[in-house]
Amino acid sequence: QLDQALATIASNLRRAGNVAVVTHSKPDGDAVGSTLALVRTLLLLGKRAVAVYPPPWQERFDAVVRNTPVVKLQPHHHSVEGAERPDAIVVVDTRAWSQVAEASHWLRENADRVLVVDHHTHSDLDMGVTAAVDPSAAAACMLVTTLCLRLLDLQEPAALPADIAEPLYLGLATDTGWFRHPNVNSDVLALAAGLLRAGADHAKLLRETEQVERPQRLAMMQRALASLELLEQQRVALMSLQQSDFESVGAERDDAGGFVDIPLVVRTVLVSAVLTEAGADQTKLSLRSKGANLASDIVTDVNRIAMTFGGGGHVQAAGALIQAPLREARTLLLQAIRNRS
Amino acid sequence: QLDQALATIASNLRRAGNVAVVTHSKPDGDAVGSTLALVRTLLLLGKRAVAVYPPPWQERFDAVVRNTPVVKLQPHHHSVEGAERPDAIVVVDTRAWSQVAEASHWLRENADRVLVVDHHTHSDLDMGVTAAVDPSAAAACMLVTTLCLRLLDLQEPAALPADIAEPLYLGLATDTGWFRHPNVNSDVLALAAGLLRAGADHAKLLRETEQVERPQRLAMMQRALASLELLEQQRVALMSLQQSDFESVGAERDDAGGFVDIPLVVRTVLVSAVLTEAGADQTKLSLRSKGANLASDIVTDVNRIAMTFGGGGHVQAAGALIQAPLREARTLLLQAIRNRS
Repeated sequence: QLDQALATIASNLRRAGNVAVVTHSKPDGDAVGSTLALVRTLLLLGKRAVAVYPPPWQERFDAVVRNTPVVKLQPHHHSVEGAERPDAIVVVDTRAWSQVAEASHWLRENADRVLVVDHHTHSDLDMGVTAAVDPSAAAACMLVTTLCLRLLDLQEPAALPADIAEPLYLGLATDTGWFRHPNVNSDVLALAAGLLRAGADHAKLLRETEQVERPQRLAMMQRALASLELLEQQRVALMSLQQSDFESVGAERDDAGGFVDIPLVVRTVLVSAVLTEAGADQTKLSLRSKGANLASDIVTDVNRIAMTFGGGGHVQAAGALIQAPLREARTLLLQAIRNRS
Repeated sequence: QLDQALATIASNLRRAGNVAVVTHSKPDGDAVGSTLALVRTLLLLGKRAVAVYPPPWQERFDAVVRNTPVVKLQPHHHSVEGAERPDAIVVVDTRAWSQVAEASHWLRENADRVLVVDHHTHSDLDMGVTAAVDPSAAAACMLVTTLCLRLLDLQEPAALPADIAEPLYLGLATDTGWFRHPNVNSDVLALAAGLLRAGADHAKLLRETEQVERPQRLAMMQRALASLELLEQQRVALMSLQQSDFESVGAERDDAGGFVDIPLVVRTVLVSAVLTEAGADQTKLSLRSKGANLASDIVTDVNRIAMTFGGGGHVQAAGALIQAPLREARTLLLQAIRNRS
């Protein structure tokens, strides 16, 4: 069924002369990698093709984009100039209207030519006339690799041109925490090996996209760790970042991403949470866990915790925006984590 | 030549009835993985076999050892009881007399039956009647995999028994920073994929060997970051840990390993160093760099910096024990990093 969907998408793309490839807002490595690989494949086939990125854009990925045609949408600006009415639009790495933000209106107008390639569990079924969705794939790039191979009539990833293998590798690396996270399996590593053989450069990609933080990141990491509380017999790690922390070190929100993973190295920690003050009455929540643990009297399915606050994600990684100030959000969170029912 | 050496080692082992497999002191994941994989292979062939570990032992690896026969040597105790005079001794993941510590005397006594499998550049050529050494291998486990396949007459890693694939995967993961470091290449990932296919469990190994730190680790990480200095136009990151830091949070030296990697995420940082007070007149130095950078007026070959203090390593990772108190060591280090010659 997945194969059939990818085959249909490939044949639609083969017939198209002009294709736009869109992804979710604040594109991450998998979103950028998926779009670039597909656009470059289509260009190689002699078509017009462009990647469309809903804001905000992370400059760290400019090094990977290089001179591939892209449109970076402006915040609150809902027209897509440079890709008005292509023959086909491929949405990659999402199938959620809420995720495509500034491109939503344009996608709805062109609904009859929208194709989807995604690996998330949440799917808005009214997006896409054809959708290839595999929630078991560690990255959208795994599905996009299959699509690119099919379009180029190649048998294996190692045969891909290097400039197509490179963004695919980035996507695979990003969504697996650079091959560290529990979602790593033999398919992931075999594909990654093939993409390196095709000419992707692991060390260069790591340097260009991961080792590009500002010094303020380390100052914020120090503050996050200084705020650390180990609760519930050291099974819950909780860090809190206030607006004043950001101001005093001159940091932006982006300087403080991903800290929630750090406390998982401690043996006793089952759930890690970071609360970030997002306004007077709003607190951003990031959650991680080591996986469902039925023997525990605390909730370790962080998707369930996030859903309490209208958010979501997976068992081991989730997030939400809590409509409460930081201190109150902390209390609500601890209630949700304690499983006294 | 390497193949020939591995073939000779394999035929020696096939003739032996009783084999000891030794590695370097304070065995890391690659040392533990190499020894366990080889011992289990030999046991499968019906031989007597035991792993011999010079101290100190890291308890985090007990989960991987399980019921495989091992001898953990006691500090300052130079006899190897339980493996007195085997038919063959294989030294894995080192070929340096200084690294085998408490096992040195026993190895010299049995010099005529010592075989070496290693991937380090430093080699004491008088160790081993046969040595298979490949400094281009990311982990000793890559060479040990070849040896195990040969002994078991198997064609590919995916065919290995799961309990042999598991420690090999651990070694590969450990020496590549769980597939994150710049030494990752297609051979590494292809082998890792094969070992997962053989039944190694990535998530379980990660949980059992990496996510086993004490809470004190996070307190020490906070102190390390609080001590951070960004010097030489933010190209040099320097963190300093005093004995009083360890005492005030109740931490041991092992709680504070690996912090030197953290500052490399900052774009401007070319060299990262951690100085740890090791005594009144001794300071431990750990160094990392993003690689040799000829355009820079600071030294980015950290092996060269470490050699200044009688230490060593590689261009991107090195260490030394500086014979000076912390404050003085800091001054000496900055002199060595500045390339004014």
